[in-house]
Amino acid sequence: MSKRLYIQEVVTRDGFQSEAQFIPSEDKIALIDRLAQTGLAKIEVTSFTSPKAIPSLRDAEEVMRGIRRVPGVEYCVLVPNVKGCERALACQVDEINLVMSASDSHGMANLRMTAEQSLEQFRQIIAVSQGSGVFINASLSTAFGCPFEGQVAEARVHELIQRLLDIGVQGVTLCDTTGMADPAQVARICREALARWPQTQFTLHFHNTRGMGLANALAALDAGIDRFDASLGGLGGCPYAPGASGNICSEDLVHMFQRMGLDTGVDLDKLLAVAATLPTLVGHPVPGAILKAGKSDRRYAKAQ
Amino acid sequence: MSKRLYIQEVVTRDGFQSEAQFIPSEDKIALIDRLAQTGLAKIEVTSFTSPKAIPSLRDAEEVMRGIRRVPGVEYCVLVPNVKGCERALACQVDEINLVMSASDSHGMANLRMTAEQSLEQFRQIIAVSQGSGVFINASLSTAFGCPFEGQVAEARVHELIQRLLDIGVQGVTLCDTTGMADPAQVARICREALARWPQTQFTLHFHNTRGMGLANALAALDAGIDRFDASLGGLGGCPYAPGASGNICSEDLVHMFQRMGLDTGVDLDKLLAVAATLPTLVGHPVPGAILKAGKSDRRYAKAQ
Repeated sequence: MSKRLYIQEVVTRDGFQSEAQFIPSEDKIALIDRLAQTGLAKIEVTSFTSPKAIPSLRDAEEVMRGIRRVPGVEYCVLVPNVKGCERALACQVDEINLVMSASDSHGMANLRMTAEQSLEQFRQIIAVSQGSGVFINASLSTAFGCPFEGQVAEARVHELIQRLLDIGVQGVTLCDTTGMADPAQVARICREALARWPQTQFTLHFHNTRGMGLANALAALDAGIDRFDASLGGLGGCPYAPGASGNICSEDLVHMFQRMGLDTGVDLDKLLAVAATLPTLVGHPVPGAILKAGKSDRRYAKAQ
Repeated sequence: MSKRLYIQEVVTRDGFQSEAQFIPSEDKIALIDRLAQTGLAKIEVTSFTSPKAIPSLRDAEEVMRGIRRVPGVEYCVLVPNVKGCERALACQVDEINLVMSASDSHGMANLRMTAEQSLEQFRQIIAVSQGSGVFINASLSTAFGCPFEGQVAEARVHELIQRLLDIGVQGVTLCDTTGMADPAQVARICREALARWPQTQFTLHFHNTRGMGLANALAALDAGIDRFDASLGGLGGCPYAPGASGNICSEDLVHMFQRMGLDTGVDLDKLLAVAATLPTLVGHPVPGAILKAGKSDRRYAKAQ
């Protein structure tokens, strides 16, 4: 039992965002309220984006206002622009998460903005949030590679981290948006980030698209990272790889860390009980391994 | 590019063993011959077990005699007893792989033998193989945990390694038979094994049952291990976890190591081309991630 790790749940935002079927608001609220009881450090509740852009999250206000806040849990929302920020602030969120891409072609494809344009918009959002006490996190997509451009220079990632901090961002999430990262690269980028910005709250956001999700989390952990995004059941597909896994799975990640003797703060059995409701909720199987195999301490009756 | 790693393919033995449908001998032979052209260090071809015990491998002689040997590739077979050893030697195998369990309840369930009984049988097999020049490897199942007994003491694993070496075993494979290992445990056991027996050829055999397969491989690599078993497509189910993944996937493992800048000796594109034939060959989808998602350097056309 060494240092404390922080697990941040993204299923109701990153997971549900890509679900074809609308999850009823009361189901989202019930799920978030159950998740809040498991010891997760943070929950990314929803996205205050245009209901037209992401219809599956069109109930952002209703969900954010319907949940019962558990002290100690941070409730975060994704905010794409000033209007979204105003909507989020009206709901008394704890944190807003801004998203930009490290590579311009991904930024244009995903957000219709270059990195420069994203940074300019962040400045405006941060100005609007002044005095609210809300924590400002920025997620840097394609920090480990871009599906259009390929390799993203590490110097570029570092430059963008610095510029984000310069405009008032307090926490930075390094995102392996399409599952391109490898453990050596993760170790390098994380070590450098922690060395250069020791006061910044860094989160690592991995996808399991190429099976390396937990290996990358392990590499980040070894480099000194203590915060991880993860999605219940491993929900959240990758638009560029149909059939492939999406986000790393919360219960699989917690299970690995727990088996390693690390303190995630999460009650794994409670989390698994919530995860078990997910396939019915979304109407299809989910990628998570522990839901299928059980925890490592699962015992079988001896053969006769 | 640092040290050379060795990837050992087990699909035609460990993978096909658990397939319900018999794979025709000529298909097995063709698959092995294609695999031998990819740069894999070793191929576990088949098992010289009783055709009644494992009907899917009842064509061991035919397959072993039908393949075209590629210089530099080691052709290994599983041998459960003296009779199997005699059959294997008659086929001029390069290596025989003996299997025992670190935990007696798993040994009884899987082999109907305690560890003591397995060691005694190994002595007889090794005596029969004397003078043949065949390399003797022993696989230690449940080295990281037993589905019946739970934790297996690390001291027990060390004791069994020593006893295996004492009776003439030259290589030892530490097997996470049912996917119970975690990276911290793997690092501990591997470091200790390499420190105590620096001259012994150790192989690590992981399953991805709980999503930790590649994380465990990474932990073993970091501890100094350079040999890994893996199964094409991730084939090879776990009888204790229906629906869960089996062996770690060869092409996913090679992909991870290659992305890390390590030399596996394997031509990944060739290996992927062979892996792509597997779903048709076995008549069902396989768990491998890279087959679905493509390599990390896969590029997509930019959005218009």
